[in-house]
Amino acid sequence: MPKTFTQIPLTRPNTPLLDTLASPADLRKLPTPQLERVVDELREYLLYAVGQCGGHFGAGLGVVELTVALHYLYHTPDDKLVWDVGHQCYPHKILTGRRESLTSIRQAGGLSGFPKRSESEYDTFGVGHSSTSISAALGMALGAEMAGSDRRAVAIIGDGAMTAGQAFEAMSHAAHTRSNLLVILNDNNMSISHNVGGLSNYFARIWASKSYIALREGGKKVLSTMPAAWDFIRRTEESMKNMVSPDMLFEAIGFNYIGPIDGHNVNELVSTLRNLRDLEGPQLLHVYTTKGKGFAPAEADPVGYHAINKIEPKPKVQVAVPSKPSAAKQKLPKYQDIFGQWLCDMAEQDPRLVGITPAMCEGSGMVEFSRRFPGRYHDVAICEQHAVTLAGGLACENQKPVVAIYSTFLQRGYDQLIHDVALQELDVTFGLDRAGLVGEDGATHGGVFDLAYLRTVPNMIIAAPSDENECRQLLYSAYQHEGPAAVRYPRGTGPGATIEQTMTALPIGQSRTLREGLQVAILAFGAMVPAALEAAIPLNATVIDMRWVKPLDRDAILRAAAQHTLLVTVEDHQQMGGAGSAVNELLHEEAVVLDVLNLALPDHFIHHGKRDVLLAQAGLDAAGIERQIRERLNRQQRLREAHQR
Amino acid sequence: MPKTFTQIPLTRPNTPLLDTLASPADLRKLPTPQLERVVDELREYLLYAVGQCGGHFGAGLGVVELTVALHYLYHTPDDKLVWDVGHQCYPHKILTGRRESLTSIRQAGGLSGFPKRSESEYDTFGVGHSSTSISAALGMALGAEMAGSDRRAVAIIGDGAMTAGQAFEAMSHAAHTRSNLLVILNDNNMSISHNVGGLSNYFARIWASKSYIALREGGKKVLSTMPAAWDFIRRTEESMKNMVSPDMLFEAIGFNYIGPIDGHNVNELVSTLRNLRDLEGPQLLHVYTTKGKGFAPAEADPVGYHAINKIEPKPKVQVAVPSKPSAAKQKLPKYQDIFGQWLCDMAEQDPRLVGITPAMCEGSGMVEFSRRFPGRYHDVAICEQHAVTLAGGLACENQKPVVAIYSTFLQRGYDQLIHDVALQELDVTFGLDRAGLVGEDGATHGGVFDLAYLRTVPNMIIAAPSDENECRQLLYSAYQHEGPAAVRYPRGTGPGATIEQTMTALPIGQSRTLREGLQVAILAFGAMVPAALEAAIPLNATVIDMRWVKPLDRDAILRAAAQHTLLVTVEDHQQMGGAGSAVNELLHEEAVVLDVLNLALPDHFIHHGKRDVLLAQAGLDAAGIERQIRERLNRQQRLREAHQR
Repeated sequence: MPKTFTQIPLTRPNTPLLDTLASPADLRKLPTPQLERVVDELREYLLYAVGQCGGHFGAGLGVVELTVALHYLYHTPDDKLVWDVGHQCYPHKILTGRRESLTSIRQAGGLSGFPKRSESEYDTFGVGHSSTSISAALGMALGAEMAGSDRRAVAIIGDGAMTAGQAFEAMSHAAHTRSNLLVILNDNNMSISHNVGGLSNYFARIWASKSYIALREGGKKVLSTMPAAWDFIRRTEESMKNMVSPDMLFEAIGFNYIGPIDGHNVNELVSTLRNLRDLEGPQLLHVYTTKGKGFAPAEADPVGYHAINKIEPKPKVQVAVPSKPSAAKQKLPKYQDIFGQWLCDMAEQDPRLVGITPAMCEGSGMVEFSRRFPGRYHDVAICEQHAVTLAGGLACENQKPVVAIYSTFLQRGYDQLIHDVALQELDVTFGLDRAGLVGEDGATHGGVFDLAYLRTVPNMIIAAPSDENECRQLLYSAYQHEGPAAVRYPRGTGPGATIEQTMTALPIGQSRTLREGLQVAILAFGAMVPAALEAAIPLNATVIDMRWVKPLDRDAILRAAAQHTLLVTVEDHQQMGGAGSAVNELLHEEAVVLDVLNLALPDHFIHHGKRDVLLAQAGLDAAGIERQIRERLNRQQRLREAHQR
Repeated sequence: MPKTFTQIPLTRPNTPLLDTLASPADLRKLPTPQLERVVDELREYLLYAVGQCGGHFGAGLGVVELTVALHYLYHTPDDKLVWDVGHQCYPHKILTGRRESLTSIRQAGGLSGFPKRSESEYDTFGVGHSSTSISAALGMALGAEMAGSDRRAVAIIGDGAMTAGQAFEAMSHAAHTRSNLLVILNDNNMSISHNVGGLSNYFARIWASKSYIALREGGKKVLSTMPAAWDFIRRTEESMKNMVSPDMLFEAIGFNYIGPIDGHNVNELVSTLRNLRDLEGPQLLHVYTTKGKGFAPAEADPVGYHAINKIEPKPKVQVAVPSKPSAAKQKLPKYQDIFGQWLCDMAEQDPRLVGITPAMCEGSGMVEFSRRFPGRYHDVAICEQHAVTLAGGLACENQKPVVAIYSTFLQRGYDQLIHDVALQELDVTFGLDRAGLVGEDGATHGGVFDLAYLRTVPNMIIAAPSDENECRQLLYSAYQHEGPAAVRYPRGTGPGATIEQTMTALPIGQSRTLREGLQVAILAFGAMVPAALEAAIPLNATVIDMRWVKPLDRDAILRAAAQHTLLVTVEDHQQMGGAGSAVNELLHEEAVVLDVLNLALPDHFIHHGKRDVLLAQAGLDAAGIERQIRERLNRQQRLREAHQR
């Protein structure tokens, strides 16, 4: 059994055996009995490395043995390992040539926190969003078949991720193709939030129950002592196999089920996996693991240790909503907390409010709401599609659903938003968290497409608050609007505005002029307002906090167009199709011919790093905004001069 | 048992009993023995009405008894019936006050082919895309609970729709909430295409097998004669209930399973449903039906009779790909056939090509491909999310996946397109069928958002062919491009261009100037090119067939901007975020100050009707384009005059 540590080493631990492993090929040369030592050294190094840089924590600790066993028995990188939701990939990175660079994880220029194809040939598939691994691994298995290769594909997926519909879709298809695919269900009965779908219940009810398994074994014995029953058993052998083993769901779908086995016993893993590699057809191996395994504080508090900060791990990740945000002067509240507080206040006023989250209770700031209003709180598991349509159904009954969802995850419920909500003008409010660049999580989690994909949809209204108080008031305004509405706000903290407890509906489609200037008018959207204001001072530019991306404040824009020679739009979203693009459309609709500068994110994916650094690189800090405006003014000047000549 | 008809009545049949039923309340006044007569009259009327107007056919015939029984026993509209994928809603419309207007179905101003909330209080939820009904009905059940009402919610869903992940997500959640929800699995072992996922297999294997059920009953008897086994049975009663009934999957998820029963025996339905209405918690009723029931030719050919045309039903819907499209002068090939032919030709050249469809084999023109290249053909069932990620996995193995998908359905795989394909620059080609307005299917199926939601995604390239040959050549070009690419083409036929058998890669991002004119340049995208050309003649305008929405032909646009006083963009897509918007962005990026007119679809959902009529209403026929350009030129003139004054 592996060692348990009680502290995170602050200096590089001695890992003499691990140090000899430059790649999985080296690992495969070791005799099996040495693997336990590899496990212990790897775990200790992992503790050290994550302590140095911060990052996802519990998931990696839980799969140390599994990672060692898989690379030991599978011929990586020819055989393909696909780690669902990359959180669990740190041990894999350590074993695949990235041991010493792990301390750079999630930092600009450093390793990605998720598997990334461009980073290593061992990273077979970029996985940041949940529940894609089985589909991807099945594609790889089919590809190997087409190429006449016997290389294998393995998807390692948690019980939380298994609740998503896509996992079910992929399992069903794999059963049909009968591909050589191994799905490892990494069952720690614990996803980021507590999953509550029927599948998790089912795991809890059937598989976790050792007494049930004992009973089943007992039952077999009872039957086998009775000769009269023997013929029945023989005849129904195939059916009974399905009926009495704890694998109903997977066998029902068409997988061969093996397990459950102890995911922290590396010897048991090795002996089981050794047989599995050469089996034909789809296999499901059910493994029990403990999140945070081998680090005592994390085992005791797996939610708090989902991820940790750099060097000095706090005893708990901060998830509670400050009860008085305005009093939290030194420590600014995060936007997710602004949302959470508003949700509670709103729910107190309106008994029809229902809060929905797809397994992101903590991340979306809904812990307090879930405690205070349990009857109106729905964590639907990692099921974004269902979350959105469910909200539509609730709205049909005159309830007032609020869907709290990350911008990047609403991409999963896009069709449902169009077809089930917007088309029917149902009264659903979306709290779109993590809009814009998200920083360390990188491109997989960027909320940089929402304005484009939402504003093209009729009946939607979309707000983009520029500070904490505007966020609260715009959430209130969106909620009061009887139709589909989204409020997008960024990850982390805002500029520190004083939050008014009173909620006031701000007029839909009405902006707020922050500064009157000459020549240049900056139309700033959401989180870009503070930087725009700063840039405006040396330029003596007008600044308008647009507040709404849809509907736009038509009058304010036309007025600004009439009074200035350059309009500048600024947003933390892709330029293509974003808020600036909406302004362009409006001007052309009104036949206004004017120079417009659209400042936004460029047409490529932006990888991980600190959010402010990344924004600056994209020219979206105050200096960048000022510089680009000056360049455009110079260009105008040159064009005028050329014209006069 | 119901009557079987052999002909579609061409005159209004006599339906004296049906005629007395103005609403479900009237139905509920009838004594049960009369229901068989209602069934027969309703079916005959349905045959007549669909014969008059064309429309979906087989699904409605299959649920006549179920519709009658549900409205008989449930207190509609207080109790909520949610019909998954609206195809099956015609009998429901007949019984809910829309009998005589059914002959207007799918025509402009007439009834929608799907349930539609604005059409009737009995239409509880707009359902056009598959597999949303359980989520919506669960929302309604939760809403009723919150309101303290005991009204019930029922989702009626086919076995094909049940394969989608969202259905699984909703079932899991319903099991957790223990809501009073009835899900009726309408099992006709037949969705539009033949579903091939594990779930369908499972149905086929377990439930359809009467011998299995007999065996199970026999087994119980064997055990009950052995006293020694009795204690075991008693102790495991609850577990055995799960283990030995043909309902493993649903019971495993947490539903109470009832059935299977005969869906064409109205008396059996009534007696079963009567008990069900008052049961607490989630219930699944498994009903066997026959698609096309009661009309002999449809029973024999349910795929061919999925939908029929007006008045004179053809013996088969045309699904085969014409072997020589260029020879089909009189009867133009549909774009789906152009795609299907290209796919076969391409597959012949390239053994790495893999074709993927989410249950739309016929609709996507893939019948011939599936026959000729079965090893490289994957129908993944109604699983768009999985389809896209699967393609990503295949591309990782250097295969060349082509995903054939309707524009409206790619909305379901949007996150997967971003996260699993584009972010990783994987070489996946999307054949985006039904782009633009789709006509009779209406707003639920409109492919009018794809340019906005796709072009904002980095690494994507997007082509929009203007005719049949360009479609073939652009598919070839997109396929040759080593990265994610989409080619969007409309529903139905094109202008009738001669198709070159030779495939030539057209340069990416390069347009084609069709006409040189003065003052006005029309940048036309895709299907809008012919109308733009026609409008250009009286205006003497330049016309450019843009061919690519991303990347745009920068040089051509800048040249056109330099040589004209008005640029006009024309596309069959929402104006917001569409191709015109891309042109605006490019001009602003280059600091080009010029009047631009963006002609596109307005910011509201466009309902069903004939495609050309709807386009004309949106000003996107030749006359509309010409008119709007003249208006803009007049407006320019007025502005100039005002300026000079």
